[in-house]
Amino acid sequence: MQAITEKSELTRAAIVGAGLDVAAELGLEALTLQAVADRIHMSKSGVFSRIGSREALQKAVVEEYGRRFHADVFAPALQLPKGLPRLKEVMRRWLAHMRDVEVHTGCIYTAGAFELDDKECELREVLLAAVLHWRAMLHRTVTQAIQAGHLKADTDAKQLVSELNSLAIGLLHDVRFLRDRAAPDRAVASFERLIRSYQT
Amino acid sequence: MQAITEKSELTRAAIVGAGLDVAAELGLEALTLQAVADRIHMSKSGVFSRIGSREALQKAVVEEYGRRFHADVFAPALQLPKGLPRLKEVMRRWLAHMRDVEVHTGCIYTAGAFELDDKECELREVLLAAVLHWRAMLHRTVTQAIQAGHLKADTDAKQLVSELNSLAIGLLHDVRFLRDRAAPDRAVASFERLIRSYQT
Repeated sequence: MQAITEKSELTRAAIVGAGLDVAAELGLEALTLQAVADRIHMSKSGVFSRIGSREALQKAVVEEYGRRFHADVFAPALQLPKGLPRLKEVMRRWLAHMRDVEVHTGCIYTAGAFELDDKECELREVLLAAVLHWRAMLHRTVTQAIQAGHLKADTDAKQLVSELNSLAIGLLHDVRFLRDRAAPDRAVASFERLIRSYQT
Repeated sequence: MQAITEKSELTRAAIVGAGLDVAAELGLEALTLQAVADRIHMSKSGVFSRIGSREALQKAVVEEYGRRFHADVFAPALQLPKGLPRLKEVMRRWLAHMRDVEVHTGCIYTAGAFELDDKECELREVLLAAVLHWRAMLHRTVTQAIQAGHLKADTDAKQLVSELNSLAIGLLHDVRFLRDRAAPDRAVASFERLIRSYQT
């Protein structure tokens, strides 16, 4: 029984991994059971039996991206002290993630946001919940830096969080669309300039 | 003859207008002769006879968006003196454009950038040329503000231009995806904060 469970876990991981590739290449709306089945040479019914409906597949892919994003960007920064050291590490990792998405999956949060912004569907809600969860973690990190006295007491955390998000999205745009190799260094300089303006 | 020319010009405008709607709703890659024909109740061959190939349609739509963007954002700001007054007016108009795209076409430059970033096709090149043309105009406006002594002499114009772009894209994200009504005011405050840090 254990071998069977392991095998089906592996298959599920392969399905979700292929789903991440499809979503990155073609967009979240192009993520269908058939597209994933074709990519890993399974039957559509085989994919369905392991993952369920197309909606369940899309949800699993967004959740898997969220897990990878968290493991890549946020979790390692928790090793650093609360406040500015942690915030700086989160941003260093986020900007590196945006710089490097070129070589792996692309940023499903950002591409998905611009793909689904004017849609009304469950997939939009799933993605929105994931993005808002990330923004809330970033907001807490900023708030801790204010409470620690590392950032000015009158810092508007929501304002700063949206500025940090703009910076990361702008970097993604310049790296992936303009293919501008100087963009990552510019983004780091922008972050340093921005954070200095909020420092005590 | 004149009446016929006017009529065919009107038809062409209707085709391109419908193309803008399709691109905004479904993305530039969904922009086909058939999709436009369906929307304005013409035959596909009728659309082809007026606009040419699908590629010509896509190009016409990107160019028409560029004309509207220029007329909305940049042209009116040319009434203001070169330097900071003109730069501020361009940004005021750009941020208003990003805030208001919700009620009209959506920002084809930004949505298209994230849709086509990893593609290799003529459409990507057409969009890239349009976006780079806009960035060059913004760069010239920033340079004039430096030359006029309104911004610090050591201002890195390319850095500031990419920061302004991040701000505009971040606003679009927060308005259209998060549907955050406070986002426009935050973007204006971010711009003022940013520009102060470069002022003499």
